[in-house]
Amino acid sequence: MAAESVQKDRIVVVGSGAFGTALAAVAASSGKASVTLLARRESIVEDFKQTGRNDSALPGIDLPGALIVSDDPAVLEGAGIVLFAMPSQAQREAGRSLYGFIGKGADVVICAKGMERASGRLLTDVVEEELHLQNVAVLSGPGFAADIAKGLPTAMVVAASSIERAAVLAEALSGATFRLYPSADRIGVQLGGALKNVLAIACGIVEGAGLGDSARAALISRGLAEMSRFVAARGGEADTVRGLSGLGDLVLTATSHQSRNLRYGIALGQSGSASGHSGELVEGAFAASVAADVARQLGVDMPVTAAVAAIIDGKMDVKTALERLMSRPITQE
Amino acid sequence: MAAESVQKDRIVVVGSGAFGTALAAVAASSGKASVTLLARRESIVEDFKQTGRNDSALPGIDLPGALIVSDDPAVLEGAGIVLFAMPSQAQREAGRSLYGFIGKGADVVICAKGMERASGRLLTDVVEEELHLQNVAVLSGPGFAADIAKGLPTAMVVAASSIERAAVLAEALSGATFRLYPSADRIGVQLGGALKNVLAIACGIVEGAGLGDSARAALISRGLAEMSRFVAARGGEADTVRGLSGLGDLVLTATSHQSRNLRYGIALGQSGSASGHSGELVEGAFAASVAADVARQLGVDMPVTAAVAAIIDGKMDVKTALERLMSRPITQE
Repeated sequence: MAAESVQKDRIVVVGSGAFGTALAAVAASSGKASVTLLARRESIVEDFKQTGRNDSALPGIDLPGALIVSDDPAVLEGAGIVLFAMPSQAQREAGRSLYGFIGKGADVVICAKGMERASGRLLTDVVEEELHLQNVAVLSGPGFAADIAKGLPTAMVVAASSIERAAVLAEALSGATFRLYPSADRIGVQLGGALKNVLAIACGIVEGAGLGDSARAALISRGLAEMSRFVAARGGEADTVRGLSGLGDLVLTATSHQSRNLRYGIALGQSGSASGHSGELVEGAFAASVAADVARQLGVDMPVTAAVAAIIDGKMDVKTALERLMSRPITQE
Repeated sequence: MAAESVQKDRIVVVGSGAFGTALAAVAASSGKASVTLLARRESIVEDFKQTGRNDSALPGIDLPGALIVSDDPAVLEGAGIVLFAMPSQAQREAGRSLYGFIGKGADVVICAKGMERASGRLLTDVVEEELHLQNVAVLSGPGFAADIAKGLPTAMVVAASSIERAAVLAEALSGATFRLYPSADRIGVQLGGALKNVLAIACGIVEGAGLGDSARAALISRGLAEMSRFVAARGGEADTVRGLSGLGDLVLTATSHQSRNLRYGIALGQSGSASGHSGELVEGAFAASVAADVARQLGVDMPVTAAVAAIIDGKMDVKTALERLMSRPITQE
């Protein structure tokens, strides 16, 4: 049975990938709390003891001496803030297996972008179900793990069930160069993180098809407008995706070639159709189909998302999809 | 005395630079109207006659055969739509010298981004004053002249005093690959075009100082939020700058190295201060000071713009300005 009482100045980051390690490093360097990184593999713990780094995730970056690295889930007991930094599709299983260790009073914060593939549900809903908790928060926005860990300036968002709770989390997790802005819109922040991947694929398609920078800029603007409509229809705030999560994240993804979604889109644009390209590991490929379906059900007009979904599902080639997009009747901006 | 009656299917584009030539080419190829490009120099007219191109502005791009090129301002008489495609600081003088030729019933459309330097006024106000007209419209947003002229997909905005009037102009000036979205917010569309240059300088500074892609994405998000506040305080719609003009244009400017504003910012970021860098020809350098002043008067919080202005005016070095930006109290996203 999980402890009821927790210590707010004890933070545990679950998941020792690049992003989890970076968040743990920032939180540990700010010195406001005791921070433990919970890794699944003992080798991560051993490597950290010997080198002071987690080279498998963030090669060459020295981690703060104050950081504790452990592979024992018992470190979760009594932790006041627990970051779930494993990949989106591993969040449910993590919730299930860690349920007994996490205190009822803990603030759990999802640090992954995407939706559950099997159900299309938001990750906060998935983890709340497994942990028998309410008020699970989410951290999202434009931040590369390496930038965060190196101390380059980064701004992201943390959304909780109330703005006061979000502000407490933002304060606890921010550092000198890592700024978290509080938000009360968990739906908008999560959809921003999931749907920007769809637009990143679209940007890739435009780039791969050689359509130019102006076309990409138009696509980003129009794509954000439809993302905004979708968020409002799902019960979030239309403006949220025009902030750090959504717009900011899209700018980062679409203009840097580190993104798998963007590279997948480029491949589609270059070859002209989805034939021969597996989008299996591409978050946005899945999100496109889910969002296009839900948008149809809700009666939300999402032409860019629908076009990306049709291309990925092999229902339309790139040329036809782009021609349709361009020949739609012009409505108000 | 200018004629009262005009023909709505006669379009004249004043200014044979790259952007004016591209707009004239698109309008002429759509075949909906007779289109004349009014050049200042006879050599442009001669070159077009011989080569079918305007190589001084758009090298190597063939222009439609239906396009008329002239250096005689008398072509303006009776024109129903007149595009003012000269640089922002030449708009007043053009209005003054062409006053007698432009009919009272003509729709005049500013196709330049910026504010009048001497007064900080919007270009629609400046041209309305010189032409003794009201309802001067404005075309803005993300579009490189070469992309437009080559027929690559591009989307921009045209804002007029009413949405109906804007829709008529959008229809008349759009082509198969060049889509104009109508807007009734002339203030927002113009400020979006002028202020994105300030943020482009900021993006350049961040890039020049080596702060990384995450920092640039954060800056764009937070910069748009402050641009939005400024537009609302000036009587425009806060959402306008989150569309094609503003956001879309900023994405185009900040992520492609064709922009003079971006390159100026990079130089500042690399050297650490404005010393030795003249921002004289950089639209955004001027806009930063004007916007920072006006924002102070209106009580609008614009930390990014204020930082750019302080750097350019030599009041602060880059390092200090960035540290101040990062250490501001965190407010709601």
